[in-house]
Amino acid sequence: MDIDIQLIEQSKIDSVDFNNLTFGRTFTDHMLVCNFADGKWQTPQIKPYGPMLFEPSARVFHYGQAVFEGMKAFKDDNDDVFLFRPDENFNRINKSAERLAMPHVPEDVFTEGLKKLLEIENDWIKKGFGNSLYIRPFIIATEGAIAASPAEEYQFIIICSPAQSYYAGEVRVIFAEKYSRSADGGVGYAKAAGNYAAQFYPTSLAHKQGYQQIIWTDASTHQYLEEAGTMNIFFRIGDKLVTAPNNDRILDGVTRKSIIQLANDNNIEIEVRRVSVSEIKEAARLGELKEIFGSGTAAVINPIKGFKHQDYVFELPELTNSYASLFKEKLLNIQYNKSEDKHNWRVKI
Amino acid sequence: MDIDIQLIEQSKIDSVDFNNLTFGRTFTDHMLVCNFADGKWQTPQIKPYGPMLFEPSARVFHYGQAVFEGMKAFKDDNDDVFLFRPDENFNRINKSAERLAMPHVPEDVFTEGLKKLLEIENDWIKKGFGNSLYIRPFIIATEGAIAASPAEEYQFIIICSPAQSYYAGEVRVIFAEKYSRSADGGVGYAKAAGNYAAQFYPTSLAHKQGYQQIIWTDASTHQYLEEAGTMNIFFRIGDKLVTAPNNDRILDGVTRKSIIQLANDNNIEIEVRRVSVSEIKEAARLGELKEIFGSGTAAVINPIKGFKHQDYVFELPELTNSYASLFKEKLLNIQYNKSEDKHNWRVKI
Repeated sequence: MDIDIQLIEQSKIDSVDFNNLTFGRTFTDHMLVCNFADGKWQTPQIKPYGPMLFEPSARVFHYGQAVFEGMKAFKDDNDDVFLFRPDENFNRINKSAERLAMPHVPEDVFTEGLKKLLEIENDWIKKGFGNSLYIRPFIIATEGAIAASPAEEYQFIIICSPAQSYYAGEVRVIFAEKYSRSADGGVGYAKAAGNYAAQFYPTSLAHKQGYQQIIWTDASTHQYLEEAGTMNIFFRIGDKLVTAPNNDRILDGVTRKSIIQLANDNNIEIEVRRVSVSEIKEAARLGELKEIFGSGTAAVINPIKGFKHQDYVFELPELTNSYASLFKEKLLNIQYNKSEDKHNWRVKI
Repeated sequence: MDIDIQLIEQSKIDSVDFNNLTFGRTFTDHMLVCNFADGKWQTPQIKPYGPMLFEPSARVFHYGQAVFEGMKAFKDDNDDVFLFRPDENFNRINKSAERLAMPHVPEDVFTEGLKKLLEIENDWIKKGFGNSLYIRPFIIATEGAIAASPAEEYQFIIICSPAQSYYAGEVRVIFAEKYSRSADGGVGYAKAAGNYAAQFYPTSLAHKQGYQQIIWTDASTHQYLEEAGTMNIFFRIGDKLVTAPNNDRILDGVTRKSIIQLANDNNIEIEVRRVSVSEIKEAARLGELKEIFGSGTAAVINPIKGFKHQDYVFELPELTNSYASLFKEKLLNIQYNKSEDKHNWRVKI
């Protein structure tokens, strides 16, 4: 595959303090851009990262045709670089695109384009447990026309941001009672841009009550726990894990499915089924609720310290041998090439 | 209010064929742009319409923080220019912004900014019934950071597109059975960008069956008819009109509320209540379903020729004295300053 490559003259890498990174604010020297026009994807370009020109009438600004992925590149002690299950991200961005009536990105543009970009940005991928290069592939509708119909022009773009180990502080959550994230027949399963903006206001209301995130419940009854918006959610009752099944409301998370596999590999009982609010509250009352944790690419595993539902407030116990830390260690060891990888999740660049 | 004004050197108006306009593809010479930064709205600018620079990490591309309005300016035979209920659009863009955790646009930026822009673009507003200048105010999150949280930088932009009388061709609709547009507790009532992209794929499936639009039903049961995505919907059963009530799933349409008022003014019985699919199908079977029409700023009133639900297909009768044409005429007469305007909907610029 041809890629037009235009390198920067002077890297900005020396101006970056890699020990004080705010998530998602620092970008590497280059980005990949591929235009879709005249019914096909054009030759991808790798060029200096920076502002780009867009028509103010571009449909992404008006009708939200925008989907994305989140991935990470890891560097081991031998300076080898790895991705984690990148085929999952490739497949998912195209599922998301399809749901928003956008064209599929070809596999070579996604895979070879990303590989080439990572080769060029190799110095931005820092060694050390927790360090990574966060990768953000996304597709947006760029055609300048404000009729409410699918665009005929798009851009597929990959930008990269160096990241340290993600620590969100202590996270307590509210179980949603009024607001909702997605409905049956909607776009909740897609990584569609509009799914995220819709959560910001309810989340800001949670912040005012001292809670950092919301665990979304089904929009129809608010009786079943679904996902946290940027994370899938697991509950540990006794020694058993439960997590909601995938459906058209819940994102098919890569970390989520890896945890389910790791649970099976490690003889940890796991049930993938609907999880009711009343079941979790009852388990909490009986002292059987041991852990709640979220899973996602950015945070890997994010332990939840407590939850609130209506007037009920529960603080989770401190555990020394939590499943959260077990899975996080196993995932990181695979990602950083420190352990066996029997499912071939690790892909060397 | 200060406005920085930079006029174009040479208007492109002479290159535009005003008798052959495709909706939303031609834009006037200027646009209004107002930046939100450091916690406040800056001095608005009116400047030449054209591509603008955006960070590829701008949150609008990733998290869909984007809301908009649709308005029209009309010119009467004396060259006076009018807006239709612009306060409704101003109030609604801020309701939409609030739901997406975006800052409110100040009234003077919206109102005086738009007035000034229309004065400058006066030649683009063509006389003649059906001609108008379509106005698109919108707010987008421009801050270059990909953390999934509300942006701290935004742009409020107004672009304008000359429009002719809108004719969408014959419109037949499918009542949604599987896909959904919005849920209780969601953002369906907001003019949020993501609401539109989510409809494109289901609508493309309807197209394949020979139907132009979908009438969305409630996501939980698919038993109640709600709106058509870009239009509110009215049903005429016998001589009575029915339309769904506003709630957090349905847009509070300006044309919709004007029709409800006009119905009251003209002693046409109208019920604002839940409208069930089964009721409409039963009325169709009994020969009592006389009309279905959509209402919205772009189309004003859009008569529906037929509908499909499951295996049931119904073709609406041809009426000589339809409510659709009655309301359309009354609305246009008010908008073009051809009739009395007892509710003061018309606002002279």
